[in-house]
Amino acid sequence: MGQLRVGMVGHAFMGAAHSQAWRTVNHAFDLPLSARMTVVCGRDEQRAAAAAVKLGWESHATDWRAVIERNDLDLVDVCTPGDTHAEIGIAALAAGKHVLCEKPLANSVAEAREMAAAAAAAEAHGIRAMCGFNYRRVPAVALMRELVAAGRIGEIRHVRAVYLQDWIVDPQFPLVWRLRKDVAGSGALGDIGAHIVDLTQFVTGQLITGVSALTETFVRSRPLSGGGSGEVTVDDAALFLARLDGGAVATYEATRFATGRKNGLRVELNGSLGSVAFDFERMNELEFYDGTLPPAEQGFSRILATEPEHPYMSAWWPAGHPIGYEHTFTHEVRDLVAAIADRKAPTPSFADALQVQIVLDAVERSAATATWVPVEAELAAAL
Amino acid sequence: MGQLRVGMVGHAFMGAAHSQAWRTVNHAFDLPLSARMTVVCGRDEQRAAAAAVKLGWESHATDWRAVIERNDLDLVDVCTPGDTHAEIGIAALAAGKHVLCEKPLANSVAEAREMAAAAAAAEAHGIRAMCGFNYRRVPAVALMRELVAAGRIGEIRHVRAVYLQDWIVDPQFPLVWRLRKDVAGSGALGDIGAHIVDLTQFVTGQLITGVSALTETFVRSRPLSGGGSGEVTVDDAALFLARLDGGAVATYEATRFATGRKNGLRVELNGSLGSVAFDFERMNELEFYDGTLPPAEQGFSRILATEPEHPYMSAWWPAGHPIGYEHTFTHEVRDLVAAIADRKAPTPSFADALQVQIVLDAVERSAATATWVPVEAELAAAL
Amino acid sequence: MGQLRVGMVGHAFMGAAHSQAWRTVNHAFDLPLSARMTVVCGRDEQRAAAAAVKLGWESHATDWRAVIERNDLDLVDVCTPGDTHAEIGIAALAAGKHVLCEKPLANSVAEAREMAAAAAAAEAHGIRAMCGFNYRRVPAVALMRELVAAGRIGEIRHVRAVYLQDWIVDPQFPLVWRLRKDVAGSGALGDIGAHIVDLTQFVTGQLITGVSALTETFVRSRPLSGGGSGEVTVDDAALFLARLDGGAVATYEATRFATGRKNGLRVELNGSLGSVAFDFERMNELEFYDGTLPPAEQGFSRILATEPEHPYMSAWWPAGHPIGYEHTFTHEVRDLVAAIADRKAPTPSFADALQVQIVLDAVERSAATATWVPVEAELAAAL
Amino acid sequence: MGQLRVGMVGHAFMGAAHSQAWRTVNHAFDLPLSARMTVVCGRDEQRAAAAAVKLGWESHATDWRAVIERNDLDLVDVCTPGDTHAEIGIAALAAGKHVLCEKPLANSVAEAREMAAAAAAAEAHGIRAMCGFNYRRVPAVALMRELVAAGRIGEIRHVRAVYLQDWIVDPQFPLVWRLRKDVAGSGALGDIGAHIVDLTQFVTGQLITGVSALTETFVRSRPLSGGGSGEVTVDDAALFLARLDGGAVATYEATRFATGRKNGLRVELNGSLGSVAFDFERMNELEFYDGTLPPAEQGFSRILATEPEHPYMSAWWPAGHPIGYEHTFTHEVRDLVAAIADRKAPTPSFADALQVQIVLDAVERSAATATWVPVEAELAAAL
Repeated sequence: MGQLRVGMVGHAFMGAAHSQAWRTVNHAFDLPLSARMTVVCGRDEQRAAAAAVKLGWESHATDWRAVIERNDLDLVDVCTPGDTHAEIGIAALAAGKHVLCEKPLANSVAEAREMAAAAAAAEAHGIRAMCGFNYRRVPAVALMRELVAAGRIGEIRHVRAVYLQDWIVDPQFPLVWRLRKDVAGSGALGDIGAHIVDLTQFVTGQLITGVSALTETFVRSRPLSGGGSGEVTVDDAALFLARLDGGAVATYEATRFATGRKNGLRVELNGSLGSVAFDFERMNELEFYDGTLPPAEQGFSRILATEPEHPYMSAWWPAGHPIGYEHTFTHEVRDLVAAIADRKAPTPSFADALQVQIVLDAVERSAATATWVPVEAELAAAL
Repeated sequence: MGQLRVGMVGHAFMGAAHSQAWRTVNHAFDLPLSARMTVVCGRDEQRAAAAAVKLGWESHATDWRAVIERNDLDLVDVCTPGDTHAEIGIAALAAGKHVLCEKPLANSVAEAREMAAAAAAAEAHGIRAMCGFNYRRVPAVALMRELVAAGRIGEIRHVRAVYLQDWIVDPQFPLVWRLRKDVAGSGALGDIGAHIVDLTQFVTGQLITGVSALTETFVRSRPLSGGGSGEVTVDDAALFLARLDGGAVATYEATRFATGRKNGLRVELNGSLGSVAFDFERMNELEFYDGTLPPAEQGFSRILATEPEHPYMSAWWPAGHPIGYEHTFTHEVRDLVAAIADRKAPTPSFADALQVQIVLDAVERSAATATWVPVEAELAAAL
Repeated sequence: MGQLRVGMVGHAFMGAAHSQAWRTVNHAFDLPLSARMTVVCGRDEQRAAAAAVKLGWESHATDWRAVIERNDLDLVDVCTPGDTHAEIGIAALAAGKHVLCEKPLANSVAEAREMAAAAAAAEAHGIRAMCGFNYRRVPAVALMRELVAAGRIGEIRHVRAVYLQDWIVDPQFPLVWRLRKDVAGSGALGDIGAHIVDLTQFVTGQLITGVSALTETFVRSRPLSGGGSGEVTVDDAALFLARLDGGAVATYEATRFATGRKNGLRVELNGSLGSVAFDFERMNELEFYDGTLPPAEQGFSRILATEPEHPYMSAWWPAGHPIGYEHTFTHEVRDLVAAIADRKAPTPSFADALQVQIVLDAVERSAATATWVPVEAELAAAL
Repeated sequence: MGQLRVGMVGHAFMGAAHSQAWRTVNHAFDLPLSARMTVVCGRDEQRAAAAAVKLGWESHATDWRAVIERNDLDLVDVCTPGDTHAEIGIAALAAGKHVLCEKPLANSVAEAREMAAAAAAAEAHGIRAMCGFNYRRVPAVALMRELVAAGRIGEIRHVRAVYLQDWIVDPQFPLVWRLRKDVAGSGALGDIGAHIVDLTQFVTGQLITGVSALTETFVRSRPLSGGGSGEVTVDDAALFLARLDGGAVATYEATRFATGRKNGLRVELNGSLGSVAFDFERMNELEFYDGTLPPAEQGFSRILATEPEHPYMSAWWPAGHPIGYEHTFTHEVRDLVAAIADRKAPTPSFADALQVQIVLDAVERSAATATWVPVEAELAAAL
C-alpha cells in the first residue's frame, strides 16, 4: 500500500484534532493510501518536540519553509491561525504538496482569492487542495444533505442557523489571539460563522446571494496575559439575514456570548414537504419531519445517525454507539486521502472556501453600512 | 336538548377537576345531552356551600344519602376517598342514578366486586356506571391505543410503565388521609399504580396474568396535623414485574419518592414492528418509532397530538396549541354523556375497574409473600 | 360580589378562547368581581345565536354599535379581525366601557395611535383598556420575566425569538382573510410576529430601537373559496434583526412556512450570568441556565412551571399537572378583572400595543427599503 | 518513559474498541508508562494477520498459550467470548502478566470465583487484574458517582436501570454465538444486564442484596449461518426487581427486543435531596435535579459533561465538543495504566466482577423459581 506522507504546521487545538484523525484514519477505514505522520512544525523548538511525542509525529521542525520543501512529504496540513494560511498554503502548493488548510481559508477575500487561484493552478498538475470545514463530515449532517438532495423536504423555504458559544462571557477572560483582528481576521464571524455559512450552503446546495447584518463587541477591553489590558478588535457576535439562490430566506447568528451554549451549532431547514434539524451538542442525532406521512403520524423524528446505513458509520461501532467531535476530522481526512488516491478534487475546495470568505466579507460590509449587501457571486465564479 | 342533571359527592382535588369538566363539556363538544350541575355534596355545610359557588354548582348538600334519592338528578359523580366509593356508588345505582366513580373503584377486591355486581344489575335497567381512569382520555394516549390496535407496532414484547411523584419525599410532610390504609386502601399502589395498570391494559388490549412485586415504606412515621406523629400504613412505592396475556413482559413502578418527578406517568411499548412512548409531563406528545420505514430514516418521532386528526382534538384549538390535565376529565365526561345518550355502556366499566383492583391485590400479596402471584382472571370473568 | 358584565364582539377562534376564559376565571381564581357573559355579537344572526349557546353567552346580538351602548354592560371584548379594532374599540371606550382588544391592536400605526389616545383619555375617567397579548400569561413566560427582573441572568446580551407555524405550506390552502392585507393588515408579521415582539420586550424590560428586516411571500396566488384564485397580499414570513435599548442584539423570525412547527413560539435570552429559553410547544416548561452554579453542575434546567410557587399556578392543579393554551386567556382575564376591581391600569396597555405596532411598521419599512430603520421611540413616548 | 507491552487475545468488536484505546491513550493522557501494541492473537492466521494491520498491532499470533508465556509482554488483554475468559485469564495471571478481561468476567459463578481467587493470589505479587466494565468511564457516569458520593442527592431511594437494544427483533436474524448458552453463558442478562448491575452499584456505592426476576426468550428458533435453524438457548430479555444494601429499591431490565432503542443504557437514581439520570444514547449529558435549590428554580438540569471540570474531559477538546463510545475504553485503559504505574489495584477488580456474576446467577435462579432470591454477599466477601 502506498503512503501519504504528511507534515503538519501548527500543533494547538486544531493540530491535536488533526493528529488524532491522521493517527486513526487507516485503522477505521480501508483506504488505498496509508497516512504517515512524518513531521510536525512549530515555531518553538521545545514545544514542537513535545508535540511530536504527544501527538504521534515521527519528527518535529521549526521552519515551515523548510518543511514544505522536503522531498519526503506529500501533503502539508495547515493548522496555524488564519493570518498565515495564505503564505504557507500557497508556498506548499507551489512546492508540489497537497494542502489541507484549516478554515477560515484566509483572513481576507484578497488572500483567499490568491489561495484559490494557487489551488486552481496546482490542480492542473494533480496537486490537491482542500479546506477543513469539518462539520460537513458529521454523519448526521451528511445525512441531512442526502435527504435534501433526494427531495425529501421539497423546495427549501427557510434556513435557520446559529453557532452559539460562551467562552468569553467573563469580561476577565484574556485578550487571546482569537480576539485580535490582525491575527484572527474577525471574531465569532470568521471562527464559527464561517462554519454555518459553509454548512448551510453544503446541505441545501444553495448559495447566499445577499445579506443584511449586525455585529457587536460587548466587551471592548480585556486583560493582557502580561498585565494591563488591550482592545478587542473583533466582533463578539455577528447576526445576519440572507437570501439563497434557490429561493430560501435565512437567519444566521454566530456568538461567543450565549451563556450555557458551549458549542451550539444548530441548523434547521424547512421545505415544502418536510424539515430537518441538527444540533451539534447532540451530534449523533438528526431530526427529520416528513410531511408526506399520514397526518396523524407526522412528527419530528429523532434519527440516531449511528446505523451502518448512515454516512461514514459502517466504519465504526454497532448502531447506537455514539461517535464524537474528533471523528469529523477522521472523516475529513478519509475523504481527502480517498480523493488523492482516486485523482479527484476533494471538497470543499479553496474556491468553495473563497466563496464563504466573500459571504463573510459581505456580512462585515453590511454591518458597517447598515444596508443590504449583495454577495458578489460573479467574483467567486470568475475563478 | 335534554339535560343530564348531575350531583357530585366530594369537592376536593378530584371534585374541582370534575367540576371543570362538567362546566366545559357542552361548550367544547356537540352532545345530545346538556350537563346541568345541580348539586354538590360535602360533609361540612360551610365548605360545601363555598364549593358550590367556587366550582359552579347550583346548590349544595351535606347528606349524600338524600342526594342520591333526589328525583331531579340523573347522575351521581363520586369524588370522595376510596373507602366510601362502594357504599355511595352501590346506593346511587340502586336509586337508579348513573354513576361516575373516581378510581380506584374501591379499597378492596371484595368491595370492588360488589360494585361491579351492582353495576351489572343496574346495566340491565339502562343505568350506566363508569370508573374515572381519566388518563385513557389523553389524546396522545388514545392515539397510542389506535396505533397499537392498527398493528403499527406489531406484536407487543415489552411494557414499561412508571408513575413517579415526589410529594412526600420530605419526612416532615404530614400524615394526610392518602397515607392511611383505612381511608386510602393503599398508597402509591392504588393511587397512581392503578392508573398505569389500567392504562397499559387499555393501550395494549392485553390483561395482566401474574405479578412479582416489592413494596416499600421509606418514612414510617409522620407528623399529625394536630401535633404528635402517626404511623404511615400504606406503601410509599410499589414495584412489580408482570406478564400479559398477549405474551408481553412488563415492569411497573409507582412511587411518591422520585425526587423531581412531579407527575411522571410514563409508558413505553416495544413491539415487533415499532414502539410507542408517552410521558404525561409532556402530555401533548406521543413518541412513535416505525420500524417499517427505510432504515436510514427510522427514529422516534415526536408526534404533537394536537391535530384535528387526533382523538378529541377537533373540539379544541388549532394544531400546536396544547391542552392540559383538566381536559382529560372533560373528555371522560364527554364519553360518558355520549354513552348515556346513545344507550351504550361506557368504559372503563366497574368490571374493568374490578379487574384492576384484582391486579393490585395480587401485587400486594406478591409483595407480602415474595413469590409470583397469578392474577385470578377467572374471578373477574365470573362477573 | 359585584359583577363585571361582558359583551364580546366576534366569536371565531379568539372568541371561543375568550369565552372559555370568561366562563372559567371565577371558578379558578378568587376575585372581587364576578364575570357575567351577557352578550355575544356577530354579523350573522344565526351564527351569533349558535355561538351564544355553544360558548355560553346569555344572549346574542348582530349590531356591535348597539351592543356597546347598552347600559347593562361594563366591558367590551373585541375579538374581530384587525381592520375593525380601531372603530369598535374607540367607540366602546367613548361609550364608557372597559375594553379588552385582541392583538394586533390595529392594522396600522395611525389607527393604533388613535386607539392609544382614546385609551389615555378614557383612563382619566377610570375606564380601562388592555390589549390581548396572551402569551405574557403563560406561567413559564411570567417566570422568565421574574428571573430576568431579579437579575438571575445578568445583563442581557442576546434575544433569539421565532414564531414558527406551517398551516399554509400547501399552495392549495385557500385565500382566507388572514392572507389579505385589507383585512389582516399584514401576514405572519402582525399575526405572530407581534407576539414575539411584545413577549421579548415584556420579559427583557427592554424596547427595540431599530430593525433590519426581510419579508417574503412564497406562494403569491391561492384558491378562492368561491372558485378561481386571488392574490396573497401579505407576507408569509418576516425576519428581522434588532437592537434593544438595554444593549442586547436580537433575531426575530415569524413564518407560516416552517413545515412541522405548529405553534413554535420560542424565545431565548442569553445574559452575562445565565440564560432562559421557552418553547410554547412545551408551554409548561422553562429552561434556565444559572451560570453562577459550580462549573461542574451548570446546565440548562428544565423547570416544570407547575408548582404553586410559579405565577398563576396555585389556582390550578398539583405540581406536575400541565395546563394548556386556553389558560393563558383565563390568566389574562384574571389580571384584567383584578385591575378593574383595584382601579388600576391593566397591562399591556394600548400604548404598549401601539409601540409594538410601531416596531412592526419599522419592520415593513426596513424590508421595503433594505436598510436599517430606527424605531421611533419618541412617538410612542409622546402619548 | 517505561513501556507497557500489551498482547491482546481476540480481535472482533471488543478487540477493535480496545485497540483504538491502546493506540490513543498516550496521545490523550500524560502517563508514566507508554502502551506498546506488541501482538494480537486470533485462532485464524489470516484473519489475525489482517487484524494486526488494521488495528495497529506490531505482530500477530494464533496460540494464546504461547502469547501469555512471552517474555516481551507485560499485559494480556482478553477480548474473547466469555467461555474462554477463565482459562486465558487465569493462565495469563499465572504467567505473571497483568490482565484486562472483558465483561462478563466469566460464564458462571464458579469460573468467576476461580478467576477472582487467581487475581487475589497474583495481586500479592504485584500482578494486576481488572474487568472491563467500560461504562464506568463515561465522564457523565463518573460525574454521577461524584455527585452521589458528595451527598448531592442525599439518601438513595430508587434505582431505575434499563439497557435496551433491538438488534435481534427480526426473527430471521441468525443464531450467532451470543445467542448460545454454551458460548455466551446467558443472553441479554450477561451481555448488557451485567453492565447495569455493575454501573448502578458503582454509582450508588451500594450492593444488591436480593432479586426477583423474570426472563423471556421471544424467538426460540433462528436460522443457522450454514442453513437450517437452531435453538436459542439464552434469554432475549431479563427483568428484575432488587433491593440494595443502603435501603434503595430498584428495577432492572435488559433486553434485545426494544424496537428503536439501539443502545439505551439508562440509569436514574432518586434520592432524598435530588436525582440524577443518564442515557447512553446521549452519553455526553447528565441530568441532575437539585432539590435544595429554591422551589421555583428546581428542574432537571442537562449538564453537558464536556467541561474540563468533568472527569477525564480535560484531556480532550474544549467544552461542548462531544466524545464517543470508544473514549470509554481509552479512559479504562488510562486508569489501568495509571494503576499499574502507581502499583495500585485497578477497579473494577475480578472480585467486583465476581460479585456481579453472583447477582446475575441470583437473577437466573429467581427467574427459574419465581421467588425472591437473596444475593449471597458472604461468598463475595469471603474472597
